[in-house]
Parts: sequence; structure tokens; C-alpha cells
Amino acid sequence: MTNDNDMMTRPNVPAIDAILGKTFKVLDDGFVRVVDYMGSDGAIVQAARVSYGAGTKKVSEDRGLIRYLLRNRHTTPFEMCEIKLHVRVPMDCWRQWIRHRTANVNEYSTRYSIAIDATQQTAAGEWRKQALGNKQGSEGFIDEGAGEALSKKEIEIQDASRAVYQARLDAGVSREQARKDLPLSTYTEAYWKIDLHNLLRFLSLRMDEHAQIEIREYATVIGEKIVAEWCPIVWDAFLEYQMTGMTLSRIEIELVGAIGRGDTDAAVDLAKKSGWLETGKKGLKRNRERTEFEEKLARLNLTIPWK
Amino acid sequence: MTNDNDMMTRPNVPAIDAILGKTFKVLDDGFVRVVDYMGSDGAIVQAARVSYGAGTKKVSEDRGLIRYLLRNRHTTPFEMCEIKLHVRVPMDCWRQWIRHRTANVNEYSTRYSIAIDATQQTAAGEWRKQALGNKQGSEGFIDEGAGEALSKKEIEIQDASRAVYQARLDAGVSREQARKDLPLSTYTEAYWKIDLHNLLRFLSLRMDEHAQIEIREYATVIGEKIVAEWCPIVWDAFLEYQMTGMTLSRIEIELVGAIGRGDTDAAVDLAKKSGWLETGKKGLKRNRERTEFEEKLARLNLTIPWK
Amino acid sequence: MTNDNDMMTRPNVPAIDAILGKTFKVLDDGFVRVVDYMGSDGAIVQAARVSYGAGTKKVSEDRGLIRYLLRNRHTTPFEMCEIKLHVRVPMDCWRQWIRHRTANVNEYSTRYSIAIDATQQTAAGEWRKQALGNKQGSEGFIDEGAGEALSKKEIEIQDASRAVYQARLDAGVSREQARKDLPLSTYTEAYWKIDLHNLLRFLSLRMDEHAQIEIREYATVIGEKIVAEWCPIVWDAFLEYQMTGMTLSRIEIELVGAIGRGDTDAAVDLAKKSGWLETGKKGLKRNRERTEFEEKLARLNLTIPWK
Amino acid sequence: MTNDNDMMTRPNVPAIDAILGKTFKVLDDGFVRVVDYMGSDGAIVQAARVSYGAGTKKVSEDRGLIRYLLRNRHTTPFEMCEIKLHVRVPMDCWRQWIRHRTANVNEYSTRYSIAIDATQQTAAGEWRKQALGNKQGSEGFIDEGAGEALSKKEIEIQDASRAVYQARLDAGVSREQARKDLPLSTYTEAYWKIDLHNLLRFLSLRMDEHAQIEIREYATVIGEKIVAEWCPIVWDAFLEYQMTGMTLSRIEIELVGAIGRGDTDAAVDLAKKSGWLETGKKGLKRNRERTEFEEKLARLNLTIPWK
Repeated sequence: MTNDNDMMTRPNVPAIDAILGKTFKVLDDGFVRVVDYMGSDGAIVQAARVSYGAGTKKVSEDRGLIRYLLRNRHTTPFEMCEIKLHVRVPMDCWRQWIRHRTANVNEYSTRYSIAIDATQQTAAGEWRKQALGNKQGSEGFIDEGAGEALSKKEIEIQDASRAVYQARLDAGVSREQARKDLPLSTYTEAYWKIDLHNLLRFLSLRMDEHAQIEIREYATVIGEKIVAEWCPIVWDAFLEYQMTGMTLSRIEIELVGAIGRGDTDAAVDLAKKSGWLETGKKGLKRNRERTEFEEKLARLNLTIPWK
Repeated sequence: MTNDNDMMTRPNVPAIDAILGKTFKVLDDGFVRVVDYMGSDGAIVQAARVSYGAGTKKVSEDRGLIRYLLRNRHTTPFEMCEIKLHVRVPMDCWRQWIRHRTANVNEYSTRYSIAIDATQQTAAGEWRKQALGNKQGSEGFIDEGAGEALSKKEIEIQDASRAVYQARLDAGVSREQARKDLPLSTYTEAYWKIDLHNLLRFLSLRMDEHAQIEIREYATVIGEKIVAEWCPIVWDAFLEYQMTGMTLSRIEIELVGAIGRGDTDAAVDLAKKSGWLETGKKGLKRNRERTEFEEKLARLNLTIPWK
Repeated sequence: MTNDNDMMTRPNVPAIDAILGKTFKVLDDGFVRVVDYMGSDGAIVQAARVSYGAGTKKVSEDRGLIRYLLRNRHTTPFEMCEIKLHVRVPMDCWRQWIRHRTANVNEYSTRYSIAIDATQQTAAGEWRKQALGNKQGSEGFIDEGAGEALSKKEIEIQDASRAVYQARLDAGVSREQARKDLPLSTYTEAYWKIDLHNLLRFLSLRMDEHAQIEIREYATVIGEKIVAEWCPIVWDAFLEYQMTGMTLSRIEIELVGAIGRGDTDAAVDLAKKSGWLETGKKGLKRNRERTEFEEKLARLNLTIPWK
Repeated sequence: MTNDNDMMTRPNVPAIDAILGKTFKVLDDGFVRVVDYMGSDGAIVQAARVSYGAGTKKVSEDRGLIRYLLRNRHTTPFEMCEIKLHVRVPMDCWRQWIRHRTANVNEYSTRYSIAIDATQQTAAGEWRKQALGNKQGSEGFIDEGAGEALSKKEIEIQDASRAVYQARLDAGVSREQARKDLPLSTYTEAYWKIDLHNLLRFLSLRMDEHAQIEIREYATVIGEKIVAEWCPIVWDAFLEYQMTGMTLSRIEIELVGAIGRGDTDAAVDLAKKSGWLETGKKGLKRNRERTEFEEKLARLNLTIPWK
């Protein structure tokens, strides 16, 4: 590798320096702020070139290299970038967040300090209905009249819970025990530090349409307001390959080929062999793999051969 | 290493087989159960001997080797053992538990299913007072009269919270959103799988007297009812070296030596140089390092030279 | 979740029990053996159902669930399975292997014991030529005449290196230092323990055609001889979705759609806008993204519109 | 916690900025350089104060807090600091280095590029003898006459190995295969990024007197030249508590107490009960735990009661 033993100045990204400490609001009382960072698009290229040996250095080639790395799952160079955020999040949302284990975390301690006196409140028009198809999702909204009653009740129960908490503290109960009936909507704060590879993994799962809306809003702010400024080449590649890309299984590859060649019969045969076209009294039976493939065909703007 | 290419039967530990699936009760409605395990005291010895070459095989030597490994932080052989537990824990406690990142976890989903209808309830005599010295601890109990009022209020707020939750579900609100004001005392369940090295780390932190009592009860059950049966040699060594052991800093080593040789003047001089004996109007100033050392002297049954 | 507090017997997989300890040969003197394991296809379903609540239990539904989990990157249930292998591998290959960090490892110590007296030797017909297109790959073989000379020279240098090692030991040099000039082809042994999720990640990278042949042979044996027996439903899904699947970027989705609808002009336009069709003196310029897409079209059995 | 939403400038440590990129030589041709870093002593305090709530901010109190955190294994705030090094290391040494899994790594690829043409060479006076007591250690040196012969032989075998490598490349053999008989003394390079908590763990194991001298030299440079400049308060505390501290088991605590109170009989009794004083024909039998305790007594400057 090239001999670059010379003294150097610390790499920085002016677009991130410009937003250091800036509060990006999320939900009704949450936020995300960048506290510090290490690395940039350039650091990824630099790390990859240790592996691949010194090479060309034009910006256009850097872009090509980063896209190549991301496309082909060469993930280690992305770990060379690190970011530290200060976040304020409802505990309910934090329960999902903390499941990403490859991060460093220091959370506000309600053993040591009095719990933050703020809860996430849901406006009358924001109560989401249970989704029918997706057992863990929501779709559409409760009508606003009913929503108003729900929101009113929410404030009451949150206030009552806080009063119980305060009464316990007033009675001399330890903070570690007094907190036990606080609602999950209570805000917490944390420093959260993670490398870019694992952050992209977090974003790909939490910006996804199957993620719960609350955490999706945090993920979207982190992605669009922060990562897009910090490592713009990575961000573009990430959107193109991971967020709006598509995966085809072996059988789906064969099916897309058959459909693309206009060979409808072959496509239907293949689907039958895969058990996708079994029929019951009401026509085609429910089949999760077939349904997912039909959604892919829609995105590909191709016709479903068995309809 | 020895040639042990022969066929083998799966290693097992009869004492664990005998409690597989058994429910160990914790708190008012929680539990811990062993679902599966891999390895034993013997597996640690076997792994260590890959590193150290084949050696003697008497049980007494296995014991010596395991104690040597634990004493000298040769941690990798302990990672060769793995255990999978099924646990039921209040969410407040689970928030601490999940901070141990080197475990595999599948938690009951309140997005997908209706939240477990059970909360941890505190009896009248179990409300702990805020500790004065330790800002994150508790000490002693609220008197039972006041405690009764607190317990009554707790049931009321827990019932009210559950009613709000149920009313939301009845109104068609999605489960993922309806749950947002459930109290932290709500029970959750999970499969939790971890290797023995990381489990010992968990136990050393969570069986510690500074850990919150609730999680300490879980840790104690896991340690005393499960690990003690599973890997008894490791368990004994762990208790002796990690749970009831003591660490001395460089300055404390010098102090213990001076005190042990009866050289009180040298000990006081050393403490002064370390800034431990500064005085204010009320005598010796508060000094956390000195206080901790005085506690160590008490455990060593040695006299504090500056008192 | 269902109340399954009853006593249970330890889950096992007869097909794995039948090969426990069996030596699967790899390369000229390497091997892989299963030493122990935890979990099965069923354990994944069980873990997923903690998250999703109790549900149907027919085998066909288990299969559907496992395929759904794998397709949608619900990775945590796969972490509930764990396997421990005993492997014998050339150090050169082990250098790649050990880069997978999420495993537990105990390696034979050449500080403590005399290095294993075996090296991987390359037969006359197995010397691979440097690939021209892929700077880190190989393609084809050196002709056997030249190969014979290379193999002869290899044995000489390996013997000479070992003689130097032995002479150092005979002179009383410490093992930790005597080993420093052993060739990378020297065999080492290790216990290697990993969960199924991370093992699949290892296999997907190391069974890949871009992986070096030596580690690919180990990965293939682990996959086809061990995982296929241990968790057959997972193995089938893994092959279909990850090993023989395909990923399309946003732009590739649009292109496949256009080609599939017979809209060649739109396809060519899209490719042009992406900068894939720039021409130089010798026609189309080299473009890595275009080349990769052309390979995908070949697998889809679709025609390249710009050729 | 305090409201610190204001814009901020990036935290930096002038003492590290002053050595950024500077090459610290290690061994005959190795080095360590700082490429980038995040955090400082102050960042640890900041992270701890998220957990503990806002507090006092004098430097003396920062020092007390950091020492408290390190002493009491509150490790997460130390994870808030991160450092990226560029290192050049013999592969034999790198094999030990890479065993620390909680780091991010990009290593020079000898699949992609021709192997670095440098090997670690041992001078005539530096051949270490096998230790007798410690099977994995060395002690003293081979006499320089014999050493000269060993060093001469080393250069010959290294040259011969390189010639074989070069001949393979000249014959068109792929780089990935040609490298297989390179000696372990061949230098490699890597970017290595790690958080401060895990770096301290690395240093405590690799600066230890039981670590092999080669990696100990790297660890010492990283500690004394880099960490000491970067986070001086942490470094002092680390030396005092972890590098020069001591751990006592429960039985050792009782023994030190008895010895310190002059109660020799009680001490001897305790040691007997622990099985430390069994005698054979040649007097006291070898006992590893007793020997280690005797070494501790020597460090404490206390008398061994059974001698």
C-alpha cells in the first residue's frame, strides 16, 4: 500500500459540522441531534483501498467503488464511519430501538434521577386502526370523533399515572421503585453511537413500511437529515439498492424470465409446481409467497399470468 | 491434539435434564425456565485443552483448570457453553435486562398480540425508601400504613391503565398504538439465549448488591437454581473469585501492605498523598475512594489507620 | 402466550445425533466435525411464536413460517439455534474464517504446544491461474507440467520451513517465537461455535463463487453435510432465497419491467440516463453496474436490449 | 437532563490532533498511526451524566467520576470514545490481535494485491528461550553465538519462501493461492477501529506480562503514546486499577486479614482447609492457587505464614 506516513489533519465533513448540535424535532416532543462523528464517504474508500491496494482517486471512481461495495455486501469499510446521536424518544419506541445490539448506549437513568416529565400524546386524528391483513400493523385512522374521546382519556390516564409517581416520591419511595407504573409513552433520552454499516441496517429495517410509524419517523429523520448530509454517496446507493431494491428467489427468477419472454404457460406451470395456485371453494387459496410475488410483479409493471 | 475422530454421543448434564421446563417463580407473577442448553463443566475443559494441548483428565485437575481459567480471565472456553431460558419479567425490569447485548432474544410482541394481562404489584410492606447515600439505590421500607395506601393506589392506576388499553382495542385501535400507555409494570415474556461467559458477566452485575432488587431476584434464581446445577465447578469458582472477591488498586495494595506490617504512619502518609485525608470544618471531607477502601478494610478485618 | 410450564425433554435432531463426532474430510488433511448443537427447525418456529403468539402447528405451516422469516429478514429466531464444530484448517484459510466475529472460538495454541506437523499441499493439477477480470480471483489451471515443478518446490519449502522450526525448538527457542516462519499452509485446529443466523451469513459469503476455493470447500461441507441435516427446512429456504436468489436495484427494477413489457426503447433510455451506455473508441465503455445487470438478464433468460 | 439544544462545535483533543498521522515505529518494520478519533475524557463524563443527570462540572470532579466509573465497571460511557488506527504488524502477531472481536477491521488483501515484501526478522541476541514454569511463555535469551546461526537461517528461509512466492506469480499462479506458503513473519497492514472500553480490555490483556512480547510492544505503544495523550484521566485510572491492581478471592481476603492481624495460626489453618498445604516426599506439593497467592503477598510486602 502507498506510504502515507505523513502528518495529517483530522478529516471532517462541513455539511455535518454545520448541523452539529442542531435539534431535529420528531413526534410531539422528541428529537435527534448529532453530537459527534468520525469518517465520511472518503473514509470508506480509504478503508476499501487498504484491502484492494491503492488505486485511482477520482470522485467518479469513489462513487463507483462505494456503490460496488454496498451492492456486493462488502460491509466492513462502512464500519469505519461512526456517529454519535443524542435522542429523545418515548420508552415504547425505545423498546424497539434498543433491540439493535451493535450500538453503544447511555440512557437517562430513572433510578438516579426523576423521570422526564413528558409523555408522547396522540392527537384526535392520529389513532390508527388495526390492520386486517397484517396482524402487527395498522391502516387508516379512527374517525376523529371517537379519536377525540381517546385522546381525552389518554391525557387523563397519563396525568393520573404521573400523579401516582409524584405521590410515591413525596412519600419517600425510591425512584427505582416509584417509576414502575409510568406509562410506556414517557420520554427517555440517550446517547446512541453506532457505525455506519449497522446504522444502515437499522435504517433499512426501521424506515421500512412495515416498521411502526413512530420509530419510522425517527429513522427517516436520521436518514434524510443526517446520513444524507454526512455520506451523500452512500446515502444514494443505500436508497437505490436497499430501500427501493427488490429480492427475487430462485423460483421468482424463473417466473420473471418466463413472463418477460411472454411464456405465460411456463409461468403458470412453475407457479403450480410451487404450490402457489391451489384452489378451494372460493377460488385461489391464500398463499403468502404468491401474494408477495404478485406485489413484485406490480412493481416491475408486469402482468400476473394467472389472473 | 489428540485424535478423537470417533463417533460420539451428545454430551448432557443430568442435573439440568432433570429441571428442563420447570418453572422457577420470581416476583409475584414472573418466572424463569430452562428450555435448552449446550455444554457443561467438561466442555470448558475440552475447549481449553484444544488451546493448551491434551493433558491430564482427572476431575481434580478439571477443577483446577476451570478455576485457573476464571481467575486469569481466559474467558473464551466459557463461551463454549450456551443456555436458553424462557423468562417472564415486568417490562421495567426487562429494560435493564436487555441492556446486556451479547444475548439472543425473542420477545413476546405486543404489536402482534394483545399485551399480557398481568402487572407486577407491590405489597404494602415492600415499598422501599430512597437511599440517602446512594442516589440510585433504596434502603429500608416505607411504614406499612403508608404502604397500604400506595399499594391500593397502584392497583387503581394499573386497572385504569388496562381499561384504557382495552377501550382502545374495542374502538378498533391497532395493538401497536393501543399499548403506548401501559404501565412499565406490565409483564412480558421472552426466550433469552446466552453463552456462559456472558451469563456470568450478567450475574456478576445483576446479583450485585447495587443492582435493583427485582432483577437481582431473577439473577439469583438463574445463578443458584440453574447455573449451580449446570456447571457446578464454574459456579463455585465464580462465587469465590467474582462475587465475593475484591479488587485492590495500586495505592490500596501499598496501603494494605503497610497496615499489615503494622506501619500506621506509612499508611497515613500514603493516604494523605492520595488526597484522601483532606479536612474541612467538620473533620475529614467526604472522599469516595477513601470510603470504598475503608469498606475493604472492614471486609479484610483490618483496622483503619486514620480513625 | 400459551402456558407451557410443564416439564419437558431436551429437543434433539436424530439426523444430527447420527453424525455427531463424524469426520468430514476437507482439502488434503482438513476436516469438520459436529461436537454439539442446540435447536432445530422447530426451535425457530417456537421462538417466532413467542413473538407472534401461539398459532397453528402443522408441519406445512412451520415450513411457511420459516420461509417467511428468512425472506423478510426476521433474523432473531434463527439465532435460537447454535452449533459447535471442531475444524482443522490451513492457517491461510483460517485467516479468512476468523474474520467472522460473531462466533466463539478456541484455537489450538502454538505458544503452548508444538505446531501441528501438517501443511496443505497443492497437487500438480491444482495450481490456479490469476483471473484477469477479477483482481482477487482465479480461473483455470496452470498446465500440469509447470504445476509439477511448483508442487515439487512447495514440498521443498514446506520441509525446509519445518526443519527451521524444529532446529529452533532443538536449540531451546520458545515455541511462541520458533513458530514465526511457519508457512501459512500449516494446519491449525479449533472449536468454532456459532448461531444459525450468523452461520447462514458465513455460508452465504463463503459458499459464494467469489469466495476462495479452499474456504468454499469448508463452507460447502458445513452447509450440505451438516446444516442440511440439522435444519432441513431452513436449508431449503436458504438455498432458494439467499444462495440462488437475486437482488435488483431501483433502476434494475424499472429496466426489467421495460424489457418484460417489450419496451426496448424505454429500457435503452433508462440505461443511458444511468450512464451505463457511454461509448469510447472501442464501443461501449466498461461499466461495472451494466455488466452485473447483463449477467442478471442472462439468469432471467431475458435479452439485453442494447446488444 | 439539561437542555443543551444549542449548536456546538466538534469536540477535539489538541494532543491527539498533534500526532494525527504520525508513525510510531514498533518491532523492526511495524508501526501504529492514529488516523481519526471521536471523544475524549470529557465525552465519557458527558455520557455518564446523561445517565446520572446533570451535575457538577469541575475538572477535579470529572476526574473523580471517571475513576469511579472505571473502578465500578460502569463500562458503557467508555464506549462513547472511538479511535481508528493504521497498523503494520507481522501476520503471526496479527493472528493474536484479530482475536479481539469487538473492533472494525480492514486488512490489506493478499488476494487482491501482491503481499507486502517485508518480514519480521529476529536479531542474534533476541531469540528467547522456552520458559520452564510457564508452558506458553519465554524467559531469557539463547546465547548470541547460537542466535547468530538462527538469525542467518531465518533470513535464508524467508528469502527462499519469498522466491517461491515470486516464482509462482511469475508462472501466472493466482495471488490467492501463491501466498499459501508465505511465512507467518510476513507483515500485513490494517485499519483497526475500536471503542475505548474494548481498547482498554485489549491493552489490559496485551500489555500484561503474560502476553507475547511482540504484541506487548504494540499494546504498549498504543497505551503510552496514544491513549495517554488522548484520554489522560482514563489512562491514569486504568494503570492504577487495572494494570497494577490486584484481585483477591474470598479465601484470599480471609488470609490477608488473618496475616494483617498477626494471626499466623488462623492463616495456616485456612490454607490447609483450602488444600493448599498438602505435602509429599519433597515437602509442599505444587499448588497453583497457593503460588499465585504467595506472589500477591510479595506484592503486598507481607510475610508468607507457612514458610
